Amino acid sequence: MEDHRSSKFPELTRELLADLKQVFQTGEGQPFIFPATGSGGWETALVNTRSPGDRLLAVRNGHFSHLFIDCAQRHGLVVDAIDVEWGEPAPPDRIEEALKADADKAIQGVLIVHNETATGVTSDLASIRRAIDAAGHPALLYVDGVSSVCSLDFRMDEWGVDLAITGSQKGLMLPAGLGIVCASPKALAQNESAKCSRCFFDWGDMQKANATGYFPYTPALSLLFGLQESLNLLLEEGLENVFARHHRLAEGVRAAVRAWGLELCSKRRENDSDSVTAVMVPEGVSGADVVDVAFKRYNLSLGAGLARVAGKLFRIGHLGALNELMLLGALAGAEMAMRDVGIDIALGSGVAAAQDSYSRSAQPLTAAR
Amino acid sequence: MEDHRSSKFPELTRELLADLKQVFQTGEGQPFIFPATGSGGWETALVNTRSPGDRLLAVRNGHFSHLFIDCAQRHGLVVDAIDVEWGEPAPPDRIEEALKADADKAIQGVLIVHNETATGVTSDLASIRRAIDAAGHPALLYVDGVSSVCSLDFRMDEWGVDLAITGSQKGLMLPAGLGIVCASPKALAQNESAKCSRCFFDWGDMQKANATGYFPYTPALSLLFGLQESLNLLLEEGLENVFARHHRLAEGVRAAVRAWGLELCSKRRENDSDSVTAVMVPEGVSGADVVDVAFKRYNLSLGAGLARVAGKLFRIGHLGALNELMLLGALAGAEMAMRDVGIDIALGSGVAAAQDSYSRSAQPLTAAR
Amino acid sequence: MEDHRSSKFPELTRELLADLKQVFQTGEGQPFIFPATGSGGWETALVNTRSPGDRLLAVRNGHFSHLFIDCAQRHGLVVDAIDVEWGEPAPPDRIEEALKADADKAIQGVLIVHNETATGVTSDLASIRRAIDAAGHPALLYVDGVSSVCSLDFRMDEWGVDLAITGSQKGLMLPAGLGIVCASPKALAQNESAKCSRCFFDWGDMQKANATGYFPYTPALSLLFGLQESLNLLLEEGLENVFARHHRLAEGVRAAVRAWGLELCSKRRENDSDSVTAVMVPEGVSGADVVDVAFKRYNLSLGAGLARVAGKLFRIGHLGALNELMLLGALAGAEMAMRDVGIDIALGSGVAAAQDSYSRSAQPLTAAR
Amino acid sequence: MEDHRSSKFPELTRELLADLKQVFQTGEGQPFIFPATGSGGWETALVNTRSPGDRLLAVRNGHFSHLFIDCAQRHGLVVDAIDVEWGEPAPPDRIEEALKADADKAIQGVLIVHNETATGVTSDLASIRRAIDAAGHPALLYVDGVSSVCSLDFRMDEWGVDLAITGSQKGLMLPAGLGIVCASPKALAQNESAKCSRCFFDWGDMQKANATGYFPYTPALSLLFGLQESLNLLLEEGLENVFARHHRLAEGVRAAVRAWGLELCSKRRENDSDSVTAVMVPEGVSGADVVDVAFKRYNLSLGAGLARVAGKLFRIGHLGALNELMLLGALAGAEMAMRDVGIDIALGSGVAAAQDSYSRSAQPLTAAR
Repeated sequence: MEDHRSSKFPELTRELLADLKQVFQTGEGQPFIFPATGSGGWETALVNTRSPGDRLLAVRNGHFSHLFIDCAQRHGLVVDAIDVEWGEPAPPDRIEEALKADADKAIQGVLIVHNETATGVTSDLASIRRAIDAAGHPALLYVDGVSSVCSLDFRMDEWGVDLAITGSQKGLMLPAGLGIVCASPKALAQNESAKCSRCFFDWGDMQKANATGYFPYTPALSLLFGLQESLNLLLEEGLENVFARHHRLAEGVRAAVRAWGLELCSKRRENDSDSVTAVMVPEGVSGADVVDVAFKRYNLSLGAGLARVAGKLFRIGHLGALNELMLLGALAGAEMAMRDVGIDIALGSGVAAAQDSYSRSAQPLTAAR
Repeated sequence: MEDHRSSKFPELTRELLADLKQVFQTGEGQPFIFPATGSGGWETALVNTRSPGDRLLAVRNGHFSHLFIDCAQRHGLVVDAIDVEWGEPAPPDRIEEALKADADKAIQGVLIVHNETATGVTSDLASIRRAIDAAGHPALLYVDGVSSVCSLDFRMDEWGVDLAITGSQKGLMLPAGLGIVCASPKALAQNESAKCSRCFFDWGDMQKANATGYFPYTPALSLLFGLQESLNLLLEEGLENVFARHHRLAEGVRAAVRAWGLELCSKRRENDSDSVTAVMVPEGVSGADVVDVAFKRYNLSLGAGLARVAGKLFRIGHLGALNELMLLGALAGAEMAMRDVGIDIALGSGVAAAQDSYSRSAQPLTAAR
Repeated sequence: MEDHRSSKFPELTRELLADLKQVFQTGEGQPFIFPATGSGGWETALVNTRSPGDRLLAVRNGHFSHLFIDCAQRHGLVVDAIDVEWGEPAPPDRIEEALKADADKAIQGVLIVHNETATGVTSDLASIRRAIDAAGHPALLYVDGVSSVCSLDFRMDEWGVDLAITGSQKGLMLPAGLGIVCASPKALAQNESAKCSRCFFDWGDMQKANATGYFPYTPALSLLFGLQESLNLLLEEGLENVFARHHRLAEGVRAAVRAWGLELCSKRRENDSDSVTAVMVPEGVSGADVVDVAFKRYNLSLGAGLARVAGKLFRIGHLGALNELMLLGALAGAEMAMRDVGIDIALGSGVAAAQDSYSRSAQPLTAAR
Repeated sequence: MEDHRSSKFPELTRELLADLKQVFQTGEGQPFIFPATGSGGWETALVNTRSPGDRLLAVRNGHFSHLFIDCAQRHGLVVDAIDVEWGEPAPPDRIEEALKADADKAIQGVLIVHNETATGVTSDLASIRRAIDAAGHPALLYVDGVSSVCSLDFRMDEWGVDLAITGSQKGLMLPAGLGIVCASPKALAQNESAKCSRCFFDWGDMQKANATGYFPYTPALSLLFGLQESLNLLLEEGLENVFARHHRLAEGVRAAVRAWGLELCSKRRENDSDSVTAVMVPEGVSGADVVDVAFKRYNLSLGAGLARVAGKLFRIGHLGALNELMLLGALAGAEMAMRDVGIDIALGSGVAAAQDSYSRSAQPLTAAR
């Protein structure tokens, strides 16, 4: 292992930054890698581009968009929140309307969570970009891509994302410990005038050090080596194939939920997330109990409903290093746990639907090596 | 890591040998650890106790018992084989009969594969011991416990096993690379007069070196450290719990097979193996195709039918570090592969039966931590 | 591995926090673990206890104390710096004087780097505490213990440290990626009124989540498991033994430097650091060249002089998982590199002095196991 | 990880066998990989090519050649041993003489240990081949290359080696657990008529299985993956560079021994081993004490004198993944231990000589990356 002060270390830094640009699908963006998490990614994106008192427009459609807004407010930013029902995607029309109403262009940025991990909803960034453009508004587009980058299609340049934020522990298949942000030239340009106080998360120090191939303070070295490996795996597989793989796995999970006769938290089929599925439990049953029983009786880690949807749903994650057999096992475990807590589920019913889906979408046998 | 010549190394050696005696359930047996595999275990058991021309009685009820016999023959031993249908356990009555017929006690040993990995059949060692005793015959009892020791109950002392043989890669949950044999005092006593040629597998060198805490040549050090960890895990869980866990998982698999309407290779319920299940495929279908499709389309490793049962079955292993969700995923994969090759299987049917089994046998929720 | 949302996770959290209190030598302190680094530790200590405009007194005696001050200033704090020559420890008399001069107690905190990694100087925290007390001043004591905690004696309670800051990658022998801070009750009490903006590094969220055994956002799970292991190793060895081991290794390095006829950057013997030694290179030679040659020709990672002492010295780290043979190899490498760049060094001279030191201080042979 | 029965496994097998041919420097040789050790390599080489009663000529110049002979004898082979003083290489003239005296070509093979690990002596295989050829003798050449293959130049084809034997834990830098043998076509041709009994170590089964890409019984899978990685590393570095690296490290160790005023066990400079150095201790001192003190006081693992040279020497291994700093540390440790047991050694003296050697032979600074 290279030491982070060794004269060979810059090769690693340069490779990582170049590869990150590829996964963000950007030519001009500037990636930053902090020894933090996705939550630190929010912070670095905001404090390096904004000053206290700045106004932001944000959509709140789940727990993570709520926290993103909270992060902005704690740093002295004023957030106009568009609240939509949890389960809905970010609404381009309401964004357009709000921006059009902002005659003096006081709004400095629009905050969107691309994939709401709490509800299993993917917002349509292309249409949001079109809404901003239709309003002729110069606000920057801040996007939380924590559970989308490297799992779902994420086109930073094409969609005009100015701040793209992610972490190491989702699509990059690493332990948590890196907060990664990619800044458009427009976002970078705001760094100097941004007055929010910052030191650990400062881009200036990072840019200066990265330019020479180093970091301004000790980086999370082991995770950087892991990141190199992850990026190689993803780029070797090809991003399109990675996205297709996630879609295929998600389709099976959704088929299972339909077979169970349960509803998704996601209200619109076209916005169902390919990286996480949130399943509504029937009235009178607690989603938290499903999670608890799944863990204690069957060693299965499901996600719980958070905040406003606490107890109303459970979540099945399906991103990263995972295959159909693991998911089928997880679906089987969810069925057992649901039945244990009194949900009327025929054992094997969801599994069968997912099997059917996976069987149809598997590589044709003739093409298998 | 201690070096294998360090003055602290003997502590490890002594701990391993003591713990191995516990898992073989023996007070007097002497364990030997060779840098080899279970097949090497057969060889060391035979060549250290026998001379060319010695006669042995063996049951051939599957591919591994066939190979065990072959190993004996290649070392110049004369084997009287009791052939039974593959799927049958070793027959105590025929063993007793053969030994009774051996009036001049020419037979020096009886060879049994405790758990036939090729057919999923566990022979009843207690009844075999009774058969030998009933015949009043002094032959040593040689037992292949490769897929039973640490997975199924194995009582070396109680059942009068003289040579117990296993490897590292099954119940001990390690990579392959250790051939382990445990010798009763009666077996050890034959070492000096045994004339089969041997050097690598010689017990004399091993005993002399082990007595001082070392090995006669470089041991497979990394596996010895792994063995220490495995034995700690098993003894901490408690052997009875380990066996119960395997039984529980196997019950689910068998429930799935019944739900599929397929037959086990194992002919007698009381001898169904708790570590591996061999499933007969219908006439006109190849079990090899099931295995192939499972691997290529669904990343599932099933075992193929071997030798006499090639093509007629596929096998599902269920020993070692495994839980019910992984097995349910495997059953789901097997269902898809079976359907792909034309077996009339309702997707989810076997999974549902296994879920029902696991759900009933899971830790009561109230007792869950 | 437990999931960070599993119902068994709180056991880990509680064990980590309890063990951290032991290594900080505190009964009342509250540890916080952030997925960051020691630099993040500075930030969390400052922003959770201070408001913009607050005044601090700080000693600047090396590059890391300079950066600590810089961090405070970037968050809007006003720092009165006591500049001393690099190589000097923090001067208790000047601290006492400055605090006595602060009649209206405007100074809110005193910033000290316990062990200046850049110069190899350990300041005497006990005497600094006495100085603060002698001045009858209520300022909080902020201590950077990044290269001291778990390597050098660090008595949080006895020395009245209010904010103790460290990272994972030094005495805790882990990869970088954790910023750890321990707050005295007095420090905690300031949290509510502190106006510095914060979100990622906020203690309030952390305390609330930690109280239930969880974290407010995804923790760096793999490092938490590593931390558990490190803390176990350190507490099992015993902190006194850990400190003695570092002292013994450092004594050998200092003997080598004396034998080379070179000066330490550290000006006072009683403040020589037991975790890092900075060696002044003669006039006309660049310390950076020593570092460069050591790395390129001999695979040896030395530390370079930073900022004001750039080129004037090189540094040998000697903390964490290291033994005398590795250090002797490093000293030998440093000798070769020094000679390569023209320093008049007799090869083996420093090594011999270190050997003599280690040989005298090694465990008596009779006591060796 | 591929399963050892998976349909992708044959790719690995084929790559390993092809790469092994490269490191043995053979075009026609057939490599075999057994889950065993180098001692198992001896056995498989002998039992697959010989019949009980066959005569062999062997040189005994150290403990490992003694054990190689012992292995042959235990399998019923008759060995004419050429005993030379330990420290001497195999004498080509005496081999030639013995073969010439064997008028009826009764001698079937010549056994040589290429690099005697016990004495640090490398025999000259080219001259031994010339001796055999000069005698016009058809005997096969059996070579133990355990501590030479992948560390010292080993030209199987050019030197007419018929059986080349090695293990995984030396030049291949893996844990012990693989016994590897490479057979010339002439050696392979003897397989069928060879009557030594064998099963585990049989080539016939191995060839048949390897031809399809599989193994006749469970291989040591984890080590096979390690082997793939090791071979890649070695071939990427280039064998010539690997050998040069070992020579460079060995030169430094020998310079140290000269500086200590001690003798090597190796009697002839041109046969000093580049993978291990055996150092004679002065009369009245026990080499075993040096080894013991080095381990207990300084955590240094030296090799002890074996059998005939027990107590008379200690050994320093210098093959595999090792660099000059580690060796300098080891030399420093050896100096301390020697002085502790009463050998008159100036601390640092050997280290200085080795430093001088390494400094001269290091990559020119201008060429360093």
